[in-house]
Amino acid sequence: MLLPLSLLILSLSSLFFSTFSRPLSQGFSNSTLNLDDSLVYLWPLPSHFTFRDDTLSIDPDLSLSLAGIGGNSTILEEAFQRYLKIIFKHNSGDNLRRGLIYDISELKITVNSDNETLQLGVDESYSLSIGRIDGFSVIGKAQIEANTVYGALRGLETFSQLCSFNYESKTVEVYKAPWYIRDEPRFAYRGLLVDTSRHYLPIDVIKQIIDSMSFAKLNVLHWHIIDEESFPLEVPTYPNLWKGAYTKWERYTVEDARDVVNYAKLRGINVMPEVDVPGHAESWGYGYPDLWPSSSCREPLDVSKNFTFDVVSAILTEMRKIFPFELFHLGGDEVNTDCWISTPHVKQWLKDQNMTTKDAYQYFVLRAQEIAISKNWTPVNWEETFNTFSSHLNPLTVVHNWLGPGVCPKVVAKGFRCIYSNQGVWYLDHLDVPWERVYNAEPIEGIKDISKQELVLGGEVCMWGETADTSDIQQTIWPRAAAAAERLWSRKESTTAVNNTLVTLPRLQYFRCLLNRRGVQAAPVTNEYARSPPYGAGSCYKQ
Amino acid sequence: MLLPLSLLILSLSSLFFSTFSRPLSQGFSNSTLNLDDSLVYLWPLPSHFTFRDDTLSIDPDLSLSLAGIGGNSTILEEAFQRYLKIIFKHNSGDNLRRGLIYDISELKITVNSDNETLQLGVDESYSLSIGRIDGFSVIGKAQIEANTVYGALRGLETFSQLCSFNYESKTVEVYKAPWYIRDEPRFAYRGLLVDTSRHYLPIDVIKQIIDSMSFAKLNVLHWHIIDEESFPLEVPTYPNLWKGAYTKWERYTVEDARDVVNYAKLRGINVMPEVDVPGHAESWGYGYPDLWPSSSCREPLDVSKNFTFDVVSAILTEMRKIFPFELFHLGGDEVNTDCWISTPHVKQWLKDQNMTTKDAYQYFVLRAQEIAISKNWTPVNWEETFNTFSSHLNPLTVVHNWLGPGVCPKVVAKGFRCIYSNQGVWYLDHLDVPWERVYNAEPIEGIKDISKQELVLGGEVCMWGETADTSDIQQTIWPRAAAAAERLWSRKESTTAVNNTLVTLPRLQYFRCLLNRRGVQAAPVTNEYARSPPYGAGSCYKQ
Repeated sequence: MLLPLSLLILSLSSLFFSTFSRPLSQGFSNSTLNLDDSLVYLWPLPSHFTFRDDTLSIDPDLSLSLAGIGGNSTILEEAFQRYLKIIFKHNSGDNLRRGLIYDISELKITVNSDNETLQLGVDESYSLSIGRIDGFSVIGKAQIEANTVYGALRGLETFSQLCSFNYESKTVEVYKAPWYIRDEPRFAYRGLLVDTSRHYLPIDVIKQIIDSMSFAKLNVLHWHIIDEESFPLEVPTYPNLWKGAYTKWERYTVEDARDVVNYAKLRGINVMPEVDVPGHAESWGYGYPDLWPSSSCREPLDVSKNFTFDVVSAILTEMRKIFPFELFHLGGDEVNTDCWISTPHVKQWLKDQNMTTKDAYQYFVLRAQEIAISKNWTPVNWEETFNTFSSHLNPLTVVHNWLGPGVCPKVVAKGFRCIYSNQGVWYLDHLDVPWERVYNAEPIEGIKDISKQELVLGGEVCMWGETADTSDIQQTIWPRAAAAAERLWSRKESTTAVNNTLVTLPRLQYFRCLLNRRGVQAAPVTNEYARSPPYGAGSCYKQ
Repeated sequence: MLLPLSLLILSLSSLFFSTFSRPLSQGFSNSTLNLDDSLVYLWPLPSHFTFRDDTLSIDPDLSLSLAGIGGNSTILEEAFQRYLKIIFKHNSGDNLRRGLIYDISELKITVNSDNETLQLGVDESYSLSIGRIDGFSVIGKAQIEANTVYGALRGLETFSQLCSFNYESKTVEVYKAPWYIRDEPRFAYRGLLVDTSRHYLPIDVIKQIIDSMSFAKLNVLHWHIIDEESFPLEVPTYPNLWKGAYTKWERYTVEDARDVVNYAKLRGINVMPEVDVPGHAESWGYGYPDLWPSSSCREPLDVSKNFTFDVVSAILTEMRKIFPFELFHLGGDEVNTDCWISTPHVKQWLKDQNMTTKDAYQYFVLRAQEIAISKNWTPVNWEETFNTFSSHLNPLTVVHNWLGPGVCPKVVAKGFRCIYSNQGVWYLDHLDVPWERVYNAEPIEGIKDISKQELVLGGEVCMWGETADTSDIQQTIWPRAAAAAERLWSRKESTTAVNNTLVTLPRLQYFRCLLNRRGVQAAPVTNEYARSPPYGAGSCYKQ
């Protein structure tokens, strides 16, 4: 049972002023920095919340109490242990020995379903309440209630963001209590693309990225595993494919990929793999040169051979055993068909089939879609497929926008679902896009019909890997990915501020510093170019 | 008992050629990259080693056997668990179920002393042998023997670098076995400076840095905690001092600092704190303005007041409870004494004492030294103190070079000990210094007398924080700090190659990729400027 609605006063107004507020910062002489206490330092902002002016101390021996038919979950137990380490990062000094009495000694998590299937649209809603036992509040503990473990994970993240270490008292405190939060995401699909073909990303780094995604409540890791530069993934039935890796160490075994999927699931994050066809696939041919039209003209994949589709099918069969998510990305972008014309046997095949190169492109994409659908996948394709032959696309297709604005309106008008990644704002490798433009991008822009708006599954920021490797990927992803994450999670009304510099920037800077505290290499928010170093000495909260 | 010397053939020649070598890499079509198998991919290079041409498999259930009076150590147990996670990062798939028999199922660590005191010059030597049970070798296991747990930690690191995951067999293997390694550092002091005043570094980030230092066998974290920009450290007896922090969240409690010290100790790393006086101390006055000559002229600290030295003494008293290392850095650099002349009461005091500003600078430094020595510390000072009044410096002083080359020769000629940090090569914030210049820097350059060479304790790379915060500090430190780390650990003969591009660069690139695999944001090695992004898609091993 969720909290009674009566307790959940919609308080968007509290974003902008609060009569109960307690100063979060003291005026140190060194610093002119005083955080604006009228703001709520949660990121992304919950959909509904109220707070008052109390301060609660949190017991460093905080215990977990699990309830509901879904409460007996190792996912929750493990998440609780992770969050204990985050919340109680600082040793509380001598407080324990002083025998202090804390306001909150228990976190109760109730989960109303034991279905731990993680799929698109899984219920991520939760309610969170924190209050002391007194005349005003009768809670006396922190409580999270959710319909699924994944909602509970989102609630744990919010709880952890409410917990602040007080350096004077050396206790963890929750300010502005009691809190009543009821929260749910605006969009079901909140993605981040990583590209392990342009640069191999070690498993540890992918896990670091997954951790950081969970802090921003992103929920889909779009794993662009393979591209023309390298083929790092093991495909047991075609064991030469990963000879297209850069080196024998820059590879992912089947077990590595499963490890990533499981690690992500424990954080409520789906992994959507991509096998980009027929373009962006040159690396396939290092193991199987027959996949190239010829050794001198290597892309797109040879459309004329059944062998090509045997390999596509085998890859998807193997990947089906690894990736349980219902969405599978088949790419389909930037297909230059010149090789099909210039290679005699392909040209002859086109003639025999009475196909133009455009027909053959459509043929390839649709045949790959059929393969994916036969394996119980929902195909996702980059927008060129829609732009080129929308009337032939399988109606199940999710169209992934990237080329520019205004695509999702056309996509949903034709009844397809859409993912928004307009490169002008949500390609993270575009280093000149400031946080505010990322933040103000709106996935449903140009779509008035509510039933059509619902066809926009959400959006995704894309971290293409040409200049992003282990050394700089996190500082390129963050903090701008967080700007998109709030856009995708929070209510549209609350992300449409009159003055982002006043009401959003300080909150994003606070979140960037929170990422830093958690060991994530989030870059200064206001640098002119993404991932530039800080311009000089100073506080994290002002850079 | 260490391994019999007869087994330990000095094999520096094996650096450059090996008649027994087994290919480490296979020629994939994608890549022209084949590692030069004549090289030994250990970083830093051990002082003595031999190898042959066998390949050994390592049991994923590798067990630890501890022996010797120092073997019963939680430091070792914890380190072994850490290294298991590093060595067996990849799941071995179905191998376990296949009931494979592995060549190496036990790591035996013998530690000959139970003294776990970690001080300058602690015995870090170790021997490591790995071989199968057969006619040729009678070892049948991996064995580390060391005189202290810290030597054993160095051996564990070397062992972990010999273990490679074979993506084909999905087992961890050691190539070129059997190995016999006897190793010890060339210099006792192998440092890295981090600066938490220009940018606050969260505890998690300091721990990440400590982890990465241990991979390169660096052993001193020089913690430049405080500077003019901010004073983040808690000093219980002067509780307003850390009001000089940027914000109330950018601070270290006493417990945080102890946590750092303990974390470092578990990795064999000493923490040397710095309290830089009398310059670089403006932030002290935010809490106690009396420490400033005046509110308008704030540096150096007011030399005329006993209160100043009371505070210095109190800080050192509090820090003595936190930092057990025998070295304490008192700074002393870049002291501009103009404020002492322009502030009437200080000027009057100078006149009363019949002191010039230079006398007063000396007076301040020497008085601070006395305070440190009275607390059983060995003082370290930046070279300006030596350059200005060497004949008055306490003979215990360790002089820390930074301004340029040629300083340590003068320092040791006068009988002082020296730490080498020539800014032209070992200041990591100098982004235009390529790895090779870092590597070729030689701490004892210009010192011919061996007894004088021994006064050079070692060296330190300095990561000043003006443009290095959480987002970019690791990519600025690495890989160049590793170049210095090998210079400081390995034998001079083995780091003086005729052609670094052929024999050292591939090894450093390999180590950079090893850091990446362990989640450390080490930047491409050959970028023109440090911490630049990779110039384009490609293999870690070639960037």
